[in-house]
Amino acid sequence: MVDWFVYTEVARGSPKNVYEAALYLYRSGGKRLRPFIVMATARMLGGLEAETRALPLAAAVELFHNFTLIHDDIMDKDDFRRGVPTTHRVYGVDFAILGGDLAYALSYKAIGLSERFGLDLASISRAFSILTEAAVRVSEGQALDMSFEKEIYVDYNDYLNMIYLKTGALLEASAKMGVIAARGSAGSAEYLLERMGMYGKFVGLAFQIRDDILGVFGDPKITGKPRYNDLLRGKKTLLVLYAYKHSEGEKRSLIERVLSRKLAGSQEELERVASIIEETGALQYAEDMARRYSAMAVEIIEGIEADDPDAAAALVELARFVVERNK
Amino acid sequence: MVDWFVYTEVARGSPKNVYEAALYLYRSGGKRLRPFIVMATARMLGGLEAETRALPLAAAVELFHNFTLIHDDIMDKDDFRRGVPTTHRVYGVDFAILGGDLAYALSYKAIGLSERFGLDLASISRAFSILTEAAVRVSEGQALDMSFEKEIYVDYNDYLNMIYLKTGALLEASAKMGVIAARGSAGSAEYLLERMGMYGKFVGLAFQIRDDILGVFGDPKITGKPRYNDLLRGKKTLLVLYAYKHSEGEKRSLIERVLSRKLAGSQEELERVASIIEETGALQYAEDMARRYSAMAVEIIEGIEADDPDAAAALVELARFVVERNK
Repeated sequence: MVDWFVYTEVARGSPKNVYEAALYLYRSGGKRLRPFIVMATARMLGGLEAETRALPLAAAVELFHNFTLIHDDIMDKDDFRRGVPTTHRVYGVDFAILGGDLAYALSYKAIGLSERFGLDLASISRAFSILTEAAVRVSEGQALDMSFEKEIYVDYNDYLNMIYLKTGALLEASAKMGVIAARGSAGSAEYLLERMGMYGKFVGLAFQIRDDILGVFGDPKITGKPRYNDLLRGKKTLLVLYAYKHSEGEKRSLIERVLSRKLAGSQEELERVASIIEETGALQYAEDMARRYSAMAVEIIEGIEADDPDAAAALVELARFVVERNK
Repeated sequence: MVDWFVYTEVARGSPKNVYEAALYLYRSGGKRLRPFIVMATARMLGGLEAETRALPLAAAVELFHNFTLIHDDIMDKDDFRRGVPTTHRVYGVDFAILGGDLAYALSYKAIGLSERFGLDLASISRAFSILTEAAVRVSEGQALDMSFEKEIYVDYNDYLNMIYLKTGALLEASAKMGVIAARGSAGSAEYLLERMGMYGKFVGLAFQIRDDILGVFGDPKITGKPRYNDLLRGKKTLLVLYAYKHSEGEKRSLIERVLSRKLAGSQEELERVASIIEETGALQYAEDMARRYSAMAVEIIEGIEADDPDAAAALVELARFVVERNK
């Protein structure tokens, strides 16, 4: 449904090359987690009618997400995502920048189309602002992520704030979009906006911690991304931050080399880092924290009266899935 | 006023580095043409009160414009703009991509703040859509511009369509923003939206043709940009397209070398191309066409009953200025 709307209503225009660059990553698939949250939240709180109204908003968050991935892949110099070459590898950096910009514009265009789907103007205006708030945060989060690469150690809280901005904020926005589709932007919707926003935020934090785990322990054939990239790049994840704090001697100095981007990069060395992460309990710690956020997200759904219990169950399942997933 | 609003209300946040990258070009100056059009249009149609309501919309178009410049400079590999090094030269390509993305998000944020300035939600929603429509067009225009570099000859109409998308669409949006601030988004505003949109479009076309002229005949000390870049890059401008059509023999083959990006690049050769552009009448042709668009823009203003004649006079003056300017 969302894909149909994107292809037939939103992403139409010329010249073809820039639309292809904008949609290339979108077409390559992805979990469609964010539109799922928009649609399921709308249905949970307003039934099938609300789910229909949510369609353009669901398209908007997924297009926005793909825009961020296109640009992030340029900045991170990543060659593969979803098992295919990244946009700038296929279209060149210039067209990837431009395609990303267009995908961004199309996400707003999708929201603009929601009047036709029965959303009132006040709600549309609110949806624009929700996406914008997330957009600002995502930029801030990406900036922090890049800055952290140059630091040796960052505080867990700074790490959590960074992943909230970079990943959690858009999932928070997705859940809020669902509320807007179901209940509009009247004052009475504020409580649900706040609660469902928290749901999205917690799912986002759990998701990103799991992502960091998969970056070291995932199977590249399943994740579609090369393993150990985060280690080589000195990314500050809970795994390495915890391992650094809870190791000493030769182990600690190896982790310090990770944190300061001084790894030699041999397979053997990277595997050694991975086993230190396991031995120090860092893996366990990160898994526990991801599960805790997941559980908090589940609790929020259980505390809201659902118009459609199936949709509520789907959101619960999603919160559990993000910490168990291998992909 | 617009700068104050941008600095104190819109562009606040952390980490500092990404906000600095986003605002670096903005701080370096620029003609502030687009916010001028927003504010003057609002005042012309709704007096001082409308001008106040227009402030966030004026900030939005200027931030958006700066976002496009940051990314365009990366794509065009330009080193200088407004007499200072371009954003990616100062902050690196990664932070320039990200800073541009943030500037883009901040342009939407500015619109979102306009409720506080007295704009109703329907008008805000319309303003979001006007900016979005321009954003899509600007991406399309930049894609065409880049694609044209690889072609030898393009039709005048294709060139005009490209500069409308790349430059005219945002000026069109700026004038429409002014109408929204003055008259809201009620059906009665549609006629003015259409007329003032045309004004912005014509000013934009005149502006861009003049820009192309300054790219070859301007004084780099005044324009802040190096001369002849367009020639070296095989940019399809009216100047070279006309010169190609109206020359033969050795002159024509030199212009063909420009169009197919095969110039050797010596100062002597570039000056020779410039004099062929003069000799063939291409310069005159481009100047005439720019003046024609300028005159059409003036006519539109003269055909609208102004609440504030001074503001109308300022818009007339602006339409004349864009074709006479040396900067």
